[in-house]
Amino acid sequence: MALILLFTDFGTRDPYVGQVKARIAELAPTQLVVDLLHEVPDFNPHAGAHLLAALADGFQPGSVFLAVVDPGVGTPRNAVVLLAGGSWFVGPDNGLLSVVAARHADSKRWRITWQPEALSATFHGRDLFALIAAEIARGEFPTNKLSPITQFDVEFDAGDLPRVIYIDHYGNAWTGVRRLPVNTPVIAAGKPFKHSESFGFVGKGEGFWFNNSVGLVELAVNRGSAAADFGLRVGDAVTVQRLN
Amino acid sequence: MALILLFTDFGTRDPYVGQVKARIAELAPTQLVVDLLHEVPDFNPHAGAHLLAALADGFQPGSVFLAVVDPGVGTPRNAVVLLAGGSWFVGPDNGLLSVVAARHADSKRWRITWQPEALSATFHGRDLFALIAAEIARGEFPTNKLSPITQFDVEFDAGDLPRVIYIDHYGNAWTGVRRLPVNTPVIAAGKPFKHSESFGFVGKGEGFWFNNSVGLVELAVNRGSAAADFGLRVGDAVTVQRLN
Amino acid sequence: MALILLFTDFGTRDPYVGQVKARIAELAPTQLVVDLLHEVPDFNPHAGAHLLAALADGFQPGSVFLAVVDPGVGTPRNAVVLLAGGSWFVGPDNGLLSVVAARHADSKRWRITWQPEALSATFHGRDLFALIAAEIARGEFPTNKLSPITQFDVEFDAGDLPRVIYIDHYGNAWTGVRRLPVNTPVIAAGKPFKHSESFGFVGKGEGFWFNNSVGLVELAVNRGSAAADFGLRVGDAVTVQRLN
Repeated sequence: MALILLFTDFGTRDPYVGQVKARIAELAPTQLVVDLLHEVPDFNPHAGAHLLAALADGFQPGSVFLAVVDPGVGTPRNAVVLLAGGSWFVGPDNGLLSVVAARHADSKRWRITWQPEALSATFHGRDLFALIAAEIARGEFPTNKLSPITQFDVEFDAGDLPRVIYIDHYGNAWTGVRRLPVNTPVIAAGKPFKHSESFGFVGKGEGFWFNNSVGLVELAVNRGSAAADFGLRVGDAVTVQRLN
Repeated sequence: MALILLFTDFGTRDPYVGQVKARIAELAPTQLVVDLLHEVPDFNPHAGAHLLAALADGFQPGSVFLAVVDPGVGTPRNAVVLLAGGSWFVGPDNGLLSVVAARHADSKRWRITWQPEALSATFHGRDLFALIAAEIARGEFPTNKLSPITQFDVEFDAGDLPRVIYIDHYGNAWTGVRRLPVNTPVIAAGKPFKHSESFGFVGKGEGFWFNNSVGLVELAVNRGSAAADFGLRVGDAVTVQRLN
Repeated sequence: MALILLFTDFGTRDPYVGQVKARIAELAPTQLVVDLLHEVPDFNPHAGAHLLAALADGFQPGSVFLAVVDPGVGTPRNAVVLLAGGSWFVGPDNGLLSVVAARHADSKRWRITWQPEALSATFHGRDLFALIAAEIARGEFPTNKLSPITQFDVEFDAGDLPRVIYIDHYGNAWTGVRRLPVNTPVIAAGKPFKHSESFGFVGKGEGFWFNNSVGLVELAVNRGSAAADFGLRVGDAVTVQRLN
């Protein structure tokens, strides 16, 4: 049994997720579908690519990630498949899969050359990506629908992204910077953040940074909102003073 | 294996969806349950009826839709079952199922005459509709709990609803108008909208309309929010100048 | 097949729920996982404990509740398991499970003494609770990872909590007061609320209280928001004049 993990900028309340799941349920009813993350920052494949790379680690081999942050849907941008680190990724060729790809030496890339008969101009998640993901999850790799390529059209590099890339509902701000030594000074919103292992080790309302549970530097406030208290937003720069 | 599709005005974050799913899991553990749409506009069976009719197309025969937009729960309004186009629908008799019914020549209607022992006054989704939906999904049509009828108490007609009926989290505004020729002028919020096949074919921040992925006319802004930019809200009138 | 019910203060849109589900899917792929409630009031194990006690009633024996409202994650607070009324509960020892425990004469408590190799400081829901819950759901009670105890470190009592403990997306306000006779005067926000069986029996925009579908006193407005109209917030006191 394979795990199909959904990673999209659809709203959790929008009808798009349900339609994707219904399609997968019809095509691969015995596979397990999990909503890994929706409401990835809208129209922002760069932040999404770094989020996906952090979240995609540590799943069982053969897991299939259906990734949709796709402001160019319906235009001539391509659709692609990636095999990296034992997991599969299906999504648009706009950079979204490229950070995962760049961080794995064993990455293999394909372009989706097939088009289904019923392909809407605005919902390839349901009409194209779900079909390919279901086939892969069922163990039927659709070679006749794919063409191997060596590069994506859009490639971001493997390095960190020193910006806020996600804010959760508590107001904790995830950055695209990977795990740092605990004595590293981190500056965001013009303010220095000190390190703490977890929330309960600083005072109520106090800000800090920590290496989070998916290996990223995260800015937080104990029992409060880092986003509200420091005015942090997705895209804000984060400065890290790496010590030698 | 049947698909049970949830369509409600419960909040995605409310505890109601989970209780419905837990009840179905106990009664029909091998069926697949998918959240098709929650947060259908509150207290608005008319908008909901048009949304359901658009979203319910194209599922495998035998799919069961559990539909709850039910401001009259606990009052003497009736509960009903519909078979239309090969799919089943279970919900309140307040018009919610009536647009689907009116659009299918093969529609069959039943009133739910049975009451479970434990029936709360405010949560028929969990206490009544989930039980009937689970039985139908298991292939055990509960004739002893139903009585055939020829009309619902509340019937909306099969025609389009020229209003905004839904706004997604991007701010795209769905209308209750079905697919139009691309040269049709569409006016909303006092402004003319031009047609585009998809987002990436108009400038950033520019508004347009398109025939969306469930066959409805939708108002959108490329990389922006049509709802915010044009002040659109559910219920707003939309004018379509049909050309001959 | 056991039911695993998630009850957390994670956001419905946050990536935490998905990671917990993916972990459970890998460890217990044939069990059914249901999102019972997320966005339990943040950092508030007291309100959460009363919500959990109300919501946990009536599930099939052997159900497993994974409960996370855990502002002290990573600090030396303990992690515990509870068996009460035929259901299992796994979560932090901060009072969250203690109202359920206090209300069942057959309650058995364990401390989790085991630590997984990979234990983040901030996400025990994924790294610890999900593992224990999956083992219990599979029917493999992990005695070697647990130590029986007679009391939790933090115990709330079995009585009602006369405060607003939850507000749903309609603006209905749940209290921690259990079912009352219908002639009981209820006061909140300085205003008296009268009883009604359901929404449709009072005028549009009118406030009332009712015994809700999980046995709690709930404040509501017909086709409106009690929270907005009366300024109700989680934590607000509710006064009940019990008649003799």
